[in-house]
Amino acid sequence: LGKGKNRKAHWAVRASEMSKRTFNPIRAIVDSMKVEPNHQKPLISLSIGDPTVFGNLPPDDEVIQAMKEALDSGQYNGYAPSVGKSWEMLSMYAAPILLLLQKSNMPTLLGILYTGYLSCREVVAGYYTCPEAPLEAQDVILTSGCSQAIELALAVLANPGQNILVPRPGFSLYKTLAQSLGIEVKFYNLLPEKSWEIDLKQMESLVDDKTACLIVNNPSNPCGSVFSKSHLQKILAVASRQCVPILADEIYADMVFEDCKYESLAKLSTNVPILSCGGLAKRWLVPGWRMGWILIHDRREIFGKEIRDGLLRLSQRILGPCTVVQGALSRILRQTSPEFYHNTLSFLKSNADLCYDALSTVCGLQPVRPSGAMYLMVGIQMEHFPEFENDVEFTERLIAEQSVFCLPATCFEYPNFFRVVITVPEEMMVEACRRIQQFCERHYEGAEGSQDLECDK
Amino acid sequence: LGKGKNRKAHWAVRASEMSKRTFNPIRAIVDSMKVEPNHQKPLISLSIGDPTVFGNLPPDDEVIQAMKEALDSGQYNGYAPSVGKSWEMLSMYAAPILLLLQKSNMPTLLGILYTGYLSCREVVAGYYTCPEAPLEAQDVILTSGCSQAIELALAVLANPGQNILVPRPGFSLYKTLAQSLGIEVKFYNLLPEKSWEIDLKQMESLVDDKTACLIVNNPSNPCGSVFSKSHLQKILAVASRQCVPILADEIYADMVFEDCKYESLAKLSTNVPILSCGGLAKRWLVPGWRMGWILIHDRREIFGKEIRDGLLRLSQRILGPCTVVQGALSRILRQTSPEFYHNTLSFLKSNADLCYDALSTVCGLQPVRPSGAMYLMVGIQMEHFPEFENDVEFTERLIAEQSVFCLPATCFEYPNFFRVVITVPEEMMVEACRRIQQFCERHYEGAEGSQDLECDK
Ligand SMILES: Cc1ncc(COP(=O)(O)O)c(C=O)c1O
Ligand SMILES: Cc1ncc(COP(=O)(O)O)c(C=O)c1O
Repeated sequence: LGKGKNRKAHWAVRASEMSKRTFNPIRAIVDSMKVEPNHQKPLISLSIGDPTVFGNLPPDDEVIQAMKEALDSGQYNGYAPSVGKSWEMLSMYAAPILLLLQKSNMPTLLGILYTGYLSCREVVAGYYTCPEAPLEAQDVILTSGCSQAIELALAVLANPGQNILVPRPGFSLYKTLAQSLGIEVKFYNLLPEKSWEIDLKQMESLVDDKTACLIVNNPSNPCGSVFSKSHLQKILAVASRQCVPILADEIYADMVFEDCKYESLAKLSTNVPILSCGGLAKRWLVPGWRMGWILIHDRREIFGKEIRDGLLRLSQRILGPCTVVQGALSRILRQTSPEFYHNTLSFLKSNADLCYDALSTVCGLQPVRPSGAMYLMVGIQMEHFPEFENDVEFTERLIAEQSVFCLPATCFEYPNFFRVVITVPEEMMVEACRRIQQFCERHYEGAEGSQDLECDK
Repeated sequence: LGKGKNRKAHWAVRASEMSKRTFNPIRAIVDSMKVEPNHQKPLISLSIGDPTVFGNLPPDDEVIQAMKEALDSGQYNGYAPSVGKSWEMLSMYAAPILLLLQKSNMPTLLGILYTGYLSCREVVAGYYTCPEAPLEAQDVILTSGCSQAIELALAVLANPGQNILVPRPGFSLYKTLAQSLGIEVKFYNLLPEKSWEIDLKQMESLVDDKTACLIVNNPSNPCGSVFSKSHLQKILAVASRQCVPILADEIYADMVFEDCKYESLAKLSTNVPILSCGGLAKRWLVPGWRMGWILIHDRREIFGKEIRDGLLRLSQRILGPCTVVQGALSRILRQTSPEFYHNTLSFLKSNADLCYDALSTVCGLQPVRPSGAMYLMVGIQMEHFPEFENDVEFTERLIAEQSVFCLPATCFEYPNFFRVVITVPEEMMVEACRRIQQFCERHYEGAEGSQDLECDK
């Protein structure tokens, strides 16, 4: 017998290289923060990009009703192809359409799934289409959250050994997924002094023959920044010049404060092919529901059939998002009340202002004003906090003394900053800022030998 | 600038090798079946492993109510770690527990997520635990359907270049996923004359130094077979002798007809480490909801921390299944009425008998009696159908003439059989069998030169 012949069998089950490479940089950092909050003070966690944690931002009632309606219909319990245009889908994974099919004498079986859950892809296409960047159902791939959208987009665009360009600071999942897939990550810089615009020159200098795509995250986690139209155009110019397709992480699309305008990259692109990743998680405040999508923008047919087919194939591995949410999607996108969006954003804006204003007055801190999303980055003038070696130590001690937990921006490859999540209830935001101030006052030291021994704030 | 220096940039976006390798064998086969159903007869599709298609097998009302309750609670909209024992999860993806945390002064932040959605993992562990194969919450990983459970199990156990042993006939996803991951597939045979038991000798002969795991699917798709306790023990003996861990695809666990007993592999294993993959799809009749799990059975600590950690890391890439379903899971597992399970199975058994009995009388066909799941395999004595080259042509013509669509078992790497799905309404089952009989009568030819020019059935 094969194995018997070659060796004495013994148990040696090892985890695959891929699973070892699948590593979340935040883990090492946060795991090393072995510290307890101050028992005198209740913990305030400003660390989690989940707007639902505090109960102050429930989803729109319409959204809940849409789910119940989908459940009651009995139409959304079966397999729904996230894509479907062939017999294969028909044969492997069904759609309610088959019932119909049996009653009617359809001329052909081919392509019928275009009328099944295709309705759901159609709804997304209809929601995001615009004359400059038209979308049809076939341009939409439904995924299990924006995370899977990014995973599939990376998996189709890049081979192991190729590289991708990723923002710094940036969302850690890009690196986790790329490493998992054996793709190299090159970081381009965002400039805090320019409201986190991209250092375009430096970004362009990173492009080489092995560059498979450029990830642009707008609005940004962790920065809360929103790119202007002209900056987006400049990004597109680089991509166009270098012939690099863009993976646009637009999960915070339209989540911008009133004084600011959100533009999708695809709308501004004349030739650069774009995979735009999005989902329900943030704007509709239901991250746990795991509904995401990829919008394929390819007006010059640069992606062509190959990339589309690749996405279809990859998306079949786990068969798309929960069908109940798919069933509810039309009503969610079409009927969520304008007030809901408005209220969410004005709450976020008010918290952002509150936090920015409060931390601006704190010696040693340099918050950067956000324009959207749910975050705010705060620079730490480390030279004024000689007790702490870095942002990790700073935030660690902030927990220990003040029971306020912010993620050190080392988690986003950006030392000497920390990130504040602004979805917490207002009183909590106020109290957190007060404690951060107290903490900084206690530890601030004027730089020796310089004039500003005292902070002049 | 990098690229500029080396070459004139031009657009050349190619789909990755991985996306090209991600190939569903059924596709090529079914896509090639360019045929239209007979317009005179409404189509009956017996091709889809989705029990919801015909509306005759709705989920238990308790299951729907559980979902509504989860929605109404407002507690299951946020990120829920499919695993969670570290600060990382706390910091990246939240759980309602954080609210609690803020009110209480917990002594430490470490490990708190064990009390969050951990409840959901606990529920699954509690449901499947038994004295012989005890399970705790930490032995459960929640996934997006059983498909993702299989994907993660393969991804953690095998490196590219290694091989896995897969049943033939068998569910096509194993090969699709393995190829996608660069893992070689070796097929072991199931024996129709022995109710689809494994050819153990042949299976064992396939094992070599590169064998990463053995996939056992029980009850089986496409066979509807259920292994006896003693056969399972023999499979375990091979795995133990060869030191090969088992990936048990037990998505049809407990879906066996009354005269038959289902045993899990883990319950019978004394030393072989097992990843058991399951989910809600089949037994609870909600495949679209995408709720699956991996049960880690490792009493000898052969998987050890390494495999567990690998699974945790991999499962974080897309953040687990829809939280509404997670929230409903406890009630689903605990409160689904016994009648529901009973009714489903007696319906399936009755359809299985009906189909088996009807096709047994048809000249040229050899159905194999199933004992569980939702399928039945039918052998085609091709020598009696000289008009058709193979099962693909046979089923193609069956559509064209009789508007009955069964998957040719070439889709399962097993030519000269076809698979019948037995979840269709009874009248449809009857009518389909009648048409299949008609079809066979028309095309049957006694073997030349043999005595049985006439079928003696
Ligand atoms: C920038 C960014 N992209 C993607 C995601 C993942 O979104 P989803 O929860 O839909 O997977 C997040 C979540 O925090 C994010 O901040
Ligand atoms: C044997 C087998 N395993 C796994 C699956 C996939 O299950 P899920 O829908 O939960 O991904 C199926 C679905 O048909 C199956 O037949």
